[in-house]
Amino acid sequence: MTAAYYGQENHGPYEIYDLGDFDLENGGKIRGGKLAYATFGTLSASRDNAILFPTWYSGTNKILEQAYVGPGRALDPEKYFIILVNQLGNGLSSSPHNTPAPFNAAKFPRVSNADDVRAQHRLVTEKFGIERLALVLGGSMGAQQTYEWAARFPAVVRRAAPIAGTARGTAHNRLLVETFIEAITGDPAFDDGWYREDGAAHRGLRRHARVFAASGFTPRLFNDELWRGLGFSSVDDFLTGFVENHFLPQDPNNLILLASKWRDNDVGRIAGGDLRRALGAITAKVAVIAIEEDGFFPLADVAAEQKLVPNSSLKLVSSAWGHLALFGIDPGYNERVDAYLKELLATS
Amino acid sequence: MTAAYYGQENHGPYEIYDLGDFDLENGGKIRGGKLAYATFGTLSASRDNAILFPTWYSGTNKILEQAYVGPGRALDPEKYFIILVNQLGNGLSSSPHNTPAPFNAAKFPRVSNADDVRAQHRLVTEKFGIERLALVLGGSMGAQQTYEWAARFPAVVRRAAPIAGTARGTAHNRLLVETFIEAITGDPAFDDGWYREDGAAHRGLRRHARVFAASGFTPRLFNDELWRGLGFSSVDDFLTGFVENHFLPQDPNNLILLASKWRDNDVGRIAGGDLRRALGAITAKVAVIAIEEDGFFPLADVAAEQKLVPNSSLKLVSSAWGHLALFGIDPGYNERVDAYLKELLATS
Repeated sequence: MTAAYYGQENHGPYEIYDLGDFDLENGGKIRGGKLAYATFGTLSASRDNAILFPTWYSGTNKILEQAYVGPGRALDPEKYFIILVNQLGNGLSSSPHNTPAPFNAAKFPRVSNADDVRAQHRLVTEKFGIERLALVLGGSMGAQQTYEWAARFPAVVRRAAPIAGTARGTAHNRLLVETFIEAITGDPAFDDGWYREDGAAHRGLRRHARVFAASGFTPRLFNDELWRGLGFSSVDDFLTGFVENHFLPQDPNNLILLASKWRDNDVGRIAGGDLRRALGAITAKVAVIAIEEDGFFPLADVAAEQKLVPNSSLKLVSSAWGHLALFGIDPGYNERVDAYLKELLATS
Repeated sequence: MTAAYYGQENHGPYEIYDLGDFDLENGGKIRGGKLAYATFGTLSASRDNAILFPTWYSGTNKILEQAYVGPGRALDPEKYFIILVNQLGNGLSSSPHNTPAPFNAAKFPRVSNADDVRAQHRLVTEKFGIERLALVLGGSMGAQQTYEWAARFPAVVRRAAPIAGTARGTAHNRLLVETFIEAITGDPAFDDGWYREDGAAHRGLRRHARVFAASGFTPRLFNDELWRGLGFSSVDDFLTGFVENHFLPQDPNNLILLASKWRDNDVGRIAGGDLRRALGAITAKVAVIAIEEDGFFPLADVAAEQKLVPNSSLKLVSSAWGHLALFGIDPGYNERVDAYLKELLATS
């Protein structure tokens, strides 16, 4: 089930870039590391039209493509060379479930968002020979990586658009993510990451889905029954058919690796823990996009960080779907974000 | 541990009112039902100075007393006869853990907030001979019961002050409470409610505490480290020393009974499911008090219901502690709520 979910049929087509042995920030190492990615459009002769878009928590390149890429959209393959890159641990790139023993499953090394960005930098520069990216953008954990990109490689990032995410997790956000992790690890079938087979820890995955939905989705989504718009018949039908269905085929160790990156995210580490200095070094033109109703990354937290980014502006999107709008299910959100991205891409 | 926690030393002094065999709305019955309560002040000769204050989720009369009762406070024992009544299932009144077999533990009957209010009505009228209450108030689940009181017994309730709660649970609120319940029931040691000894399901109780804190407490409480004001040294220290410490000595079946009352609360049942009609029948003067930052009972939901109560006004309190302010730990909240209650009590 898990292997099929993460495969080309469900989330392809994608290519693999071989990182070789990839050293991690914490001293660990991924042997034979692989980055899965998909591209759209054509890289210009001057290599100046590339856009990089890393995935979010439990996202894949296919999910990003369906929500953001297409003719007439801001991410228009007729104009840009768009690289959708799967983050480490998402099940397509190197992950606990697809790494051979002994570094598989619970023994897969701990990875940070900074490691992802360093790996993506190699893809961009070594594979494609790109020196400057026209735009780096991402939603949620992708926004975390977008900030990391802009702060770590200012000479490479011309423009950046972190959407619905922050450069450093707040204490409350860390606690929320910890409850997601514990929902899975608390399932005895999880067995410290050594579950016997795919789906063994499905109770934990189902609980994870519900804790995730209860804390991060907007009250209005439930109270005004917006889930009916997706074809569901009751709250329970929606939670099972949409949220549990999204997480159930995924690998628990993969999700926990992703969640631990989310929880521990801190772009300030680039500057010895000084977030102000780390963000102050960003030279890209930045559109910080916040979803006003976001339960995971509240507007106040996003806005506070935007003030630390020199050449930036705060752009607001309102959606009754809150954080879930990232998935492209709210046409109003899609239009608004496209407009912000087009405006950003039009700047020199 | 559990028996000691719920005893006179920790939560007394309290008295017991014997309900005898108490019929429940759903057709069930509590044999030898008991209501635990504590009173302060003296009932006037004309019996017109009584205030009733039911407990909230996991609260007791002692917790209410410490936060709300005292000379100079709105609930001043020198002026009023104050009855703090423990709701069924809270561990002092009849509860799963203190009921003898065979109706103990997982076999304790399902109870509704309406059952509580009917039992409290008997205490008020039969034990004390009170025909009209000067005020009914309560926070959170106590607010749910306050609405039930005002709608079910309009001739008895002169004034009412539901604080930080609603008359009917929203879909989102029900989902939140369901995640609290599942945090406990998902612990294998819970064993369908037949845990072998006190504390056996402590992992579930700890998880419950953290899901509760992550979803209901304000982001600011964590992000601005307000927990330092309570003497804790880190988020984890606070979560363990304050939130887990509050729930750990409590009985899991008790908490689940309370949570199921919370989840299923619907004052509209009085009028065949028509909430507008049920609330429209209220004749009391009502101060609907909302905590603006409340994560459990958002202001929008409280405000929408207040419009359905004829003789009511909406009163706002702001507290960085959000729902937790109910505990009396924010002096600003205490002053403001006291002022609202004094104003309400001064009306004829």
